[in-house]
Amino acid sequence: MSKQQIGVVGMAVMGRNIALNIESRGYSVSLYNRTGSKTTDVLEENPDKNLKGTFTIEEFVDSLETPRKIMLMVQAGAGTDATIESLLPHLDKGDILIDGGNTYYKDTIRRSEYLAESGINFIGTGVSGGEEGALLGPAIMPGGQKEAYELVAPIFEKIAAKAEDGKPCVTYIGENGAGHYVKMVHNGIEYGDMQLIAESYDLLHRGLGLSAEEIGKIFEEWNNGELDSFLMEISAQILQTNDPETGKPMVEVIMDRAGNKGTGKWTSQSALDLGEPLSLITESVFARFISSQKEQRVIASEIIPNVDAQLDIDDAAKAEFIEALRNALYFSKIMSYAQGFAQMNAASEEYNWNLPYGEIASIFRAGCIIRAKFLQKITDAYEKDANLQNLMLDEYFLDIVSKNHDAVRHVVSTAIAAGIPVPTFSSAISYYDSYRSAVLPANLIQAQRDLFGAHTYNRVDKPGTFHFLWNEGKEEKLED
Amino acid sequence: MSKQQIGVVGMAVMGRNIALNIESRGYSVSLYNRTGSKTTDVLEENPDKNLKGTFTIEEFVDSLETPRKIMLMVQAGAGTDATIESLLPHLDKGDILIDGGNTYYKDTIRRSEYLAESGINFIGTGVSGGEEGALLGPAIMPGGQKEAYELVAPIFEKIAAKAEDGKPCVTYIGENGAGHYVKMVHNGIEYGDMQLIAESYDLLHRGLGLSAEEIGKIFEEWNNGELDSFLMEISAQILQTNDPETGKPMVEVIMDRAGNKGTGKWTSQSALDLGEPLSLITESVFARFISSQKEQRVIASEIIPNVDAQLDIDDAAKAEFIEALRNALYFSKIMSYAQGFAQMNAASEEYNWNLPYGEIASIFRAGCIIRAKFLQKITDAYEKDANLQNLMLDEYFLDIVSKNHDAVRHVVSTAIAAGIPVPTFSSAISYYDSYRSAVLPANLIQAQRDLFGAHTYNRVDKPGTFHFLWNEGKEEKLED
Repeated sequence: MSKQQIGVVGMAVMGRNIALNIESRGYSVSLYNRTGSKTTDVLEENPDKNLKGTFTIEEFVDSLETPRKIMLMVQAGAGTDATIESLLPHLDKGDILIDGGNTYYKDTIRRSEYLAESGINFIGTGVSGGEEGALLGPAIMPGGQKEAYELVAPIFEKIAAKAEDGKPCVTYIGENGAGHYVKMVHNGIEYGDMQLIAESYDLLHRGLGLSAEEIGKIFEEWNNGELDSFLMEISAQILQTNDPETGKPMVEVIMDRAGNKGTGKWTSQSALDLGEPLSLITESVFARFISSQKEQRVIASEIIPNVDAQLDIDDAAKAEFIEALRNALYFSKIMSYAQGFAQMNAASEEYNWNLPYGEIASIFRAGCIIRAKFLQKITDAYEKDANLQNLMLDEYFLDIVSKNHDAVRHVVSTAIAAGIPVPTFSSAISYYDSYRSAVLPANLIQAQRDLFGAHTYNRVDKPGTFHFLWNEGKEEKLED
Repeated sequence: MSKQQIGVVGMAVMGRNIALNIESRGYSVSLYNRTGSKTTDVLEENPDKNLKGTFTIEEFVDSLETPRKIMLMVQAGAGTDATIESLLPHLDKGDILIDGGNTYYKDTIRRSEYLAESGINFIGTGVSGGEEGALLGPAIMPGGQKEAYELVAPIFEKIAAKAEDGKPCVTYIGENGAGHYVKMVHNGIEYGDMQLIAESYDLLHRGLGLSAEEIGKIFEEWNNGELDSFLMEISAQILQTNDPETGKPMVEVIMDRAGNKGTGKWTSQSALDLGEPLSLITESVFARFISSQKEQRVIASEIIPNVDAQLDIDDAAKAEFIEALRNALYFSKIMSYAQGFAQMNAASEEYNWNLPYGEIASIFRAGCIIRAKFLQKITDAYEKDANLQNLMLDEYFLDIVSKNHDAVRHVVSTAIAAGIPVPTFSSAISYYDSYRSAVLPANLIQAQRDLFGAHTYNRVDKPGTFHFLWNEGKEEKLED
């Protein structure tokens, strides 16, 4: 009996769709799910496909060509560990396990080391694009043993989304947890993009009094230019969709409470560990948290005096403000990506991943949630300078931010005067102004730390580590 | 031979000073340090004191009254575990270990559980006030078994700082890691306070062109009012201190690179885990990170076009701006404490600590780094309402923020126009405006999540969980 080319464990919607995607590219696929009826469902709903249902782990493993390629599409966390334990006794050296879940990168590093003890290769891969992406073409971010990846690369290249230039949205990211790390940062960037769009909507809606439909049309227009992106496109669609029941715009019947599944939080926590100032994405995570405190906000809104949320923009200046907002949004998006890519840089050094930044931006161009035209500019920037320290220092982005920083200053000031919260727009301009400040007031902070905790300081005029005896007015030199 | 009443392990500066503090209150103290010569040094430098040097663990443990009270003042982390392991075989049930280090609260929870297996009580206690505080009177935040704490309470109450009303700055915080958690948040708040003062200094220095000495005098004046605090006091002192070598203000010869020892980062990471929007403190942590990227900032400052950092404030309006800045600082400080106390609230629920918020504010009034007059107002607020959800909702604070929010709007807008970064002032007003917004634009975010990931939503007009089929224009009800 001939063996199948690849196996997929987990027949929930993502696993099912990945399996169907792979099969549709001409591969034979074995399916396995702990509850066999789900496997039967997939087979029944997809007759005449090159799919083989298996109902025990042994049968599943035996059905595969060696070295086996097994994709795990199970609940991230304990579910992944349990699946690995059930497979492990039946695997042979050189087999390849591929975890396609939304896994915490430190778990991937741990599992990679654990499986290596048994000679099993482990690929932790980010898969972005939701259910539809999984079926038709996701962006794929695989990390793990390079030799093992080479064996699955032909499959991944076929199932991945294709960018405008025809390139598949998959590339080898790096060892062990690199793929899941990059997927995590992708999701963090997604949080930032979504919050920036939400703040823009708030300014146009509460601030200028435009209707959802009018804002939808503005976003549609923006989507034709530099801001061309999946999230802008669906925002335009959402804002122009009405509730069939009430006839109101859908967005106005949906509760303003944004959930989260933790990847944004992980990104911020990693930034804090790495010493990287990921302020914009972190503000967007906090903005979701505040949105969830709905009951408190409703109470507070009745007690705390309101500023009239109308922007101080007269009708003649509306169009100008909307254009400033568009420029502010592009500016802020660049700040967010600059922070995200700087964080990948720091993680790459910490974990010795040697991340291919230009390639990463390139595979984000299609399939994934943050897909956008401007990502090509990031790829271009890293092609010009593979060691670019910050996107802002690239010629193209420098030009854009130089032109647009006044717009974001105008938008943030106008919003603050009207009492409309713009946490991510604010953090964008704070970051820009901090990053381009040769001197920041942290000298005072370091002096305070030296005074109350003897934490020492460096001087601007000579090398060495010093401590000041603040009550005696004397300086001590501690180290050269 | 009579036994000593308490033992201290670790003769670095904090341990030495705590031991001397305890002895000065009339207690007999055994000392132990892994390297015996340090113990000998302490004895030689402090003759005729009721201190007993011991040079083996056995001798140390044997020298103590039972139940033994042993204070660990060792390097937090592996050092604490190693010390516990060396002591454990020699201890008896009911003995009390007290960790006075800057320990991560999760480690304290773990050690508490571990030691309970052997019947050993474990008190993890925050000790704030630096070297001087340890010697003369720190603020102390003990967590652990209440019965065990009662046995050391008389000592702690004697060595603690005394507030204006004579109350010792120590109170039982809660079980296991509660004391170290509160100390961590204290440190996070310290980061926020320091960054707010630094931004104020920057606005007065770069923005208004005032000299360090002039700013020092302004801070001195501010320190006489609502902003009366240790950090304001030392900032005034620092700014009026000149470098004996160059004659320049010390603050201008100190490098603008602020270090950190991780407690601010921990506070932010915990906020992210708890779903609490701790934006101001987190921005202050990120501000330290950016300050450390000095080389990049210097390069960027030469490439990225500058906004003239002069504030658009004419001479006649200077005094008015300085008063607005003072009001903005008080406003923002209140936002920071509101966030910090809300986070303690969330942690208290998560870990069943039943934290005494009013008492916590009360013990912060003296001894510790964030000591300040206005903390009495927080105690008052929790005395009026022990279940206060947010400081802003208390009458006193509501009145202050209602009066001062315009000042912070003015300050932030002026700073942004001039290109002076004000990340914490900005986050203060964002938080205020978000918290008092009955409706936030998170409805658009939740709609996006529903569209690309089927993450569902609630409606504003009826209960239930829904999913919208965006391409078909139909709503599905999933749960009641």
